[in-house]
Amino acid sequence: MYSFKNDYSEGMHPRILNALAASNLEQTEGYGEDYYTQQAAELLKEKIGRTDIDIHLLVGGTQTNLTAISAFLRPHEAVVAASTGHVFTHETGAIEATGHKVIAVEVKDGKLKREHIEAVLEAHTDEHMVKPKMVYISNSTEVGSIYKKEEIKSLSQFCKKNKLLLYLDGARLGSALSSEENDMTLEDIGRLTDAFYIGGTKNGALMGEALVICQDNLKEDFRFHIKQKGALLAKGRFLGLQFRELFKDNLYFELSEHANKMAGLLQHAISKAGYAFLTHTPSNQIFPVFPNGVIEELQKKYSFHIWEKVDGDHSAIRLVTSWATEEAAVMNFIEDVQGMAEN
Amino acid sequence: MYSFKNDYSEGMHPRILNALAASNLEQTEGYGEDYYTQQAAELLKEKIGRTDIDIHLLVGGTQTNLTAISAFLRPHEAVVAASTGHVFTHETGAIEATGHKVIAVEVKDGKLKREHIEAVLEAHTDEHMVKPKMVYISNSTEVGSIYKKEEIKSLSQFCKKNKLLLYLDGARLGSALSSEENDMTLEDIGRLTDAFYIGGTKNGALMGEALVICQDNLKEDFRFHIKQKGALLAKGRFLGLQFRELFKDNLYFELSEHANKMAGLLQHAISKAGYAFLTHTPSNQIFPVFPNGVIEELQKKYSFHIWEKVDGDHSAIRLVTSWATEEAAVMNFIEDVQGMAEN
Amino acid sequence: MYSFKNDYSEGMHPRILNALAASNLEQTEGYGEDYYTQQAAELLKEKIGRTDIDIHLLVGGTQTNLTAISAFLRPHEAVVAASTGHVFTHETGAIEATGHKVIAVEVKDGKLKREHIEAVLEAHTDEHMVKPKMVYISNSTEVGSIYKKEEIKSLSQFCKKNKLLLYLDGARLGSALSSEENDMTLEDIGRLTDAFYIGGTKNGALMGEALVICQDNLKEDFRFHIKQKGALLAKGRFLGLQFRELFKDNLYFELSEHANKMAGLLQHAISKAGYAFLTHTPSNQIFPVFPNGVIEELQKKYSFHIWEKVDGDHSAIRLVTSWATEEAAVMNFIEDVQGMAEN
Amino acid sequence: MYSFKNDYSEGMHPRILNALAASNLEQTEGYGEDYYTQQAAELLKEKIGRTDIDIHLLVGGTQTNLTAISAFLRPHEAVVAASTGHVFTHETGAIEATGHKVIAVEVKDGKLKREHIEAVLEAHTDEHMVKPKMVYISNSTEVGSIYKKEEIKSLSQFCKKNKLLLYLDGARLGSALSSEENDMTLEDIGRLTDAFYIGGTKNGALMGEALVICQDNLKEDFRFHIKQKGALLAKGRFLGLQFRELFKDNLYFELSEHANKMAGLLQHAISKAGYAFLTHTPSNQIFPVFPNGVIEELQKKYSFHIWEKVDGDHSAIRLVTSWATEEAAVMNFIEDVQGMAEN
Repeated sequence: MYSFKNDYSEGMHPRILNALAASNLEQTEGYGEDYYTQQAAELLKEKIGRTDIDIHLLVGGTQTNLTAISAFLRPHEAVVAASTGHVFTHETGAIEATGHKVIAVEVKDGKLKREHIEAVLEAHTDEHMVKPKMVYISNSTEVGSIYKKEEIKSLSQFCKKNKLLLYLDGARLGSALSSEENDMTLEDIGRLTDAFYIGGTKNGALMGEALVICQDNLKEDFRFHIKQKGALLAKGRFLGLQFRELFKDNLYFELSEHANKMAGLLQHAISKAGYAFLTHTPSNQIFPVFPNGVIEELQKKYSFHIWEKVDGDHSAIRLVTSWATEEAAVMNFIEDVQGMAEN
Repeated sequence: MYSFKNDYSEGMHPRILNALAASNLEQTEGYGEDYYTQQAAELLKEKIGRTDIDIHLLVGGTQTNLTAISAFLRPHEAVVAASTGHVFTHETGAIEATGHKVIAVEVKDGKLKREHIEAVLEAHTDEHMVKPKMVYISNSTEVGSIYKKEEIKSLSQFCKKNKLLLYLDGARLGSALSSEENDMTLEDIGRLTDAFYIGGTKNGALMGEALVICQDNLKEDFRFHIKQKGALLAKGRFLGLQFRELFKDNLYFELSEHANKMAGLLQHAISKAGYAFLTHTPSNQIFPVFPNGVIEELQKKYSFHIWEKVDGDHSAIRLVTSWATEEAAVMNFIEDVQGMAEN
Repeated sequence: MYSFKNDYSEGMHPRILNALAASNLEQTEGYGEDYYTQQAAELLKEKIGRTDIDIHLLVGGTQTNLTAISAFLRPHEAVVAASTGHVFTHETGAIEATGHKVIAVEVKDGKLKREHIEAVLEAHTDEHMVKPKMVYISNSTEVGSIYKKEEIKSLSQFCKKNKLLLYLDGARLGSALSSEENDMTLEDIGRLTDAFYIGGTKNGALMGEALVICQDNLKEDFRFHIKQKGALLAKGRFLGLQFRELFKDNLYFELSEHANKMAGLLQHAISKAGYAFLTHTPSNQIFPVFPNGVIEELQKKYSFHIWEKVDGDHSAIRLVTSWATEEAAVMNFIEDVQGMAEN
Repeated sequence: MYSFKNDYSEGMHPRILNALAASNLEQTEGYGEDYYTQQAAELLKEKIGRTDIDIHLLVGGTQTNLTAISAFLRPHEAVVAASTGHVFTHETGAIEATGHKVIAVEVKDGKLKREHIEAVLEAHTDEHMVKPKMVYISNSTEVGSIYKKEEIKSLSQFCKKNKLLLYLDGARLGSALSSEENDMTLEDIGRLTDAFYIGGTKNGALMGEALVICQDNLKEDFRFHIKQKGALLAKGRFLGLQFRELFKDNLYFELSEHANKMAGLLQHAISKAGYAFLTHTPSNQIFPVFPNGVIEELQKKYSFHIWEKVDGDHSAIRLVTSWATEEAAVMNFIEDVQGMAEN
């Protein structure tokens, strides 16, 4: 049984494992005050092209989102997100648990646009309602789509004009920036957002997300918040080591390119076999629509999520690839799909 | 510069590193629903001697405390802790951030006694004050002392009688249960507390704490709370792997025995060299009192915390040993102290 | 300028003012432990037909909702509400500020139905999402509609079967139960919900809402929560006095009948003058649709909310009547509308 | 049975009752946007001698404290208070429920001094601990003492220098400023604190506290916080009316002068009868120490709190006077005490 269920089924990239092993018995400072973490921060600053930013390494995505958002907002301020946004649907109310409302805008393609936020601002007129203050976007989105530079630029300008914070959840930022359709760099994101995070867990790390705070007045005392939310890792150097390894050369993007390439192979073959997709996804998640019989057959050899019913006879499934996805497994899957299509 | 600063300066025990490496490229279920985590839970249940308990693996101590306490208490209920308790002093208000007051009782030796809690109950008489509901103890305590079985039993009975929950923070439980003065087992703790956790981070793991919920009505929906607090690790199997390795034989206690032994060597030698200790600590933390000049000399070769001023000329320092502490380093330290004592 | 803007523009009913005056210099116990509050509770128990319920008097609606909901739910549990529900739209995130998500279901008529909740339950499948636990309904709703007994019964059964709590916001319960279309009593509501509140502020009181807790296991320690949320009034006897006055005979319902009657007069006349309504509202709020020119004319003599644009030339306005609405003012308004219709 | 139990046993001052009655059937804007509230704010600004301050009227003291503190602080910031401070002991963890730790300093006389805060700052050194940010004082204090101008000045300077906020809980500010030993004015307090509130509930109002925000950057969006905490009164004009009445001439201070005078009579006579006091209290609360037998006798005719045991035979009681305390009752009490002393 081969899994296309998600991009965190395997462990860490071998180079990261080696890095952990190499430094394992060294003594370092705790809580991310070690030199590996410092080096990781410096490498990231270089890649982002700014020295006036703060980098904090946390363990997971939900943790990063809740720590950042609750540190950045005052109690009456709210987050605007797509209805598909991770903070709205898949974090067990983590943001609300810190006291903040998440205002969701219904979207099909996972992407927030200027007009969505405009509509939210218009509907929130006085102190009987929360005050929308942060715009939360994901890139790539939870449904596999990616933002173009022009789109983020437009959001960024709109946010600045309206004194909103723009926060980007980059759990799958590697895949987004490695997409064939991408026209952005880390530098662009560092210039256009107030804060964002670079996901490690879903792109080669054992665990770890690098939060980047670009806006000056969000920086103060951030480590207090990390500690308060239980997110300050005693052996923080292991987060530093991983990001150092991922960013000391181009490894991070090589891994996401592989993931995208594997998804591309699947997409192309499934398409050629005559099947449609729920939505256009130039990243490492694809959502083909199959007859239910085909799905049942595929489930005998592969594991994946059934995403949603399309009609009585068809459903969309989600296939996720990663840095660890084996080309041989992809080829097998393609063969199996083609075989079924012929029948 | 050798560090006696804490018990998380090094990485993980080599056997754990090997276990991570061995399974690294395997595909497993995410979020702790893998078989390694299941195996770890079964091993722990065996050691604790109960099958009717729930085991959850989390990443760190503050995270475990805040997740458990906020899940167990209603909004008006409070925690009673020693003034030295980690939740009161060293978690940046993590418990308060989830809405609960921590009521501290001034103690010298880190240990809560029945009469302390009685006094708190007497002082909290009506709905204008919080309702004390959970008793929080640490073993070993933050100042190196340990509880005797009779003491925990007495607390346990008192708590049951007064409908209080007894929660034990076991960040250094290995060291406590391996102490020469200890007369308890994991089984005792599983029988006498409502919930407790077994610390991995400070005893050989890269990271990880095993929360044990003994009391039935604290179990429901606990995984929701883990997720909500950002504490559900995507690659949770790595927590499972570590605890499996630590508990599949006696490794966990072998490691803490080593830590205690190293502390014992230091203690014996320092004592013999004519120095006193701040407090009696039969575990892996010791608090010798040195002349300030001696401390300055030692700081040239060793790093450690200066704990508190004793008088104008003397201070207590904290020396912490761990599974990774090298006997050679201990011997060097002893030699240096003896050398200074002779001058 | 006469105001139809809301049902809290005037002070309190003269009988209540007299009651306050009569007891003003008496000495009583503080914090609602006085005999007026006790009497009010007893009168309410009689009207509801149950002695096994708890009554608590609070100052306002948002305060009552946030105190009750945060006391009743565990941190991972969420509220299901209509998108028009007061807790979702008009309480500045008060519920989220206590840590709980409010899941909104889009409805036009303000009323939640069984199938709405079913859909929410189906969408919330595991611990990565909040756990829907409470169903929040308002009667009359925020858009003036009311529930029929059969509808609440159906919700009640569904909730019991699915272990959900049914909570009814009765800020305008008087108007609902006095509606010509109503077929329910306070007894029914006391039998069919787990908790509800009887609104005083919008029906003759200076301020005050009576929270009724019907379900046994929601009762414990509730006064702690009132105090913790800043909702325990020092001179609580004034809340008791008001509810005693409202319920010692039929005053409460006489007042809401008057409000409904005034709304009915407006509705009938506006309808006869040829204007439509946004929605059917058999209570004290009506939403007529007027040409914008008519609205401008009316604004010269009356104040009211413009509810929403209907098309380029028409808008719906909200007219609210209350126990204090003068029939003469209603007649003037009607005349003015008829006059404009004729032109 | 005459009550000296507290200063909120009676209703409101007759002039306030008349003011409520006079405007009762008027229509005004809701939620404190009426002209009575505006007038009250203007009167208060005049008395405080600043126009650049914001005034908000809330219902009660705990409500005011929790709304202000949670609005002013970021999640990792904490309050420093005397161990006798209302927020620490008598608000059911209201501040903690909004996420903030209250750090208590043990004091006998209810008063915080510079050195207390210095010690707290020294003990809070890094991000593993909360960050002390607000100093909370009460005047008069919960044990009846009052601050001298020099003391508040010293605290104010210390706070400014250390970027701390100084917040004054004025639940009994009238009594403090009317004390014979007082050397401060409302103007002083408006200049020396960052925010404070003027208590109405305990000095003639039915209910109500006037929060004064002096510091510019605490003002923004405060009404959102009032609404979110359930503290925005629909018929807010009744708060405005009360404060207008209290401050349109000198009524507020006349009332507190009466309260102090009554306490003074008691104090003088009890002292003359040979009894000591627990502590020096130049305000409307006194704490005489009586033999237990005397207390039992007094309890037959008067109600009051037994404050604490002094020794096996003696206890301190608390006697509280108010604007409504009758001189005849005071004389009776004095007679009774003198009678007992003679026996």
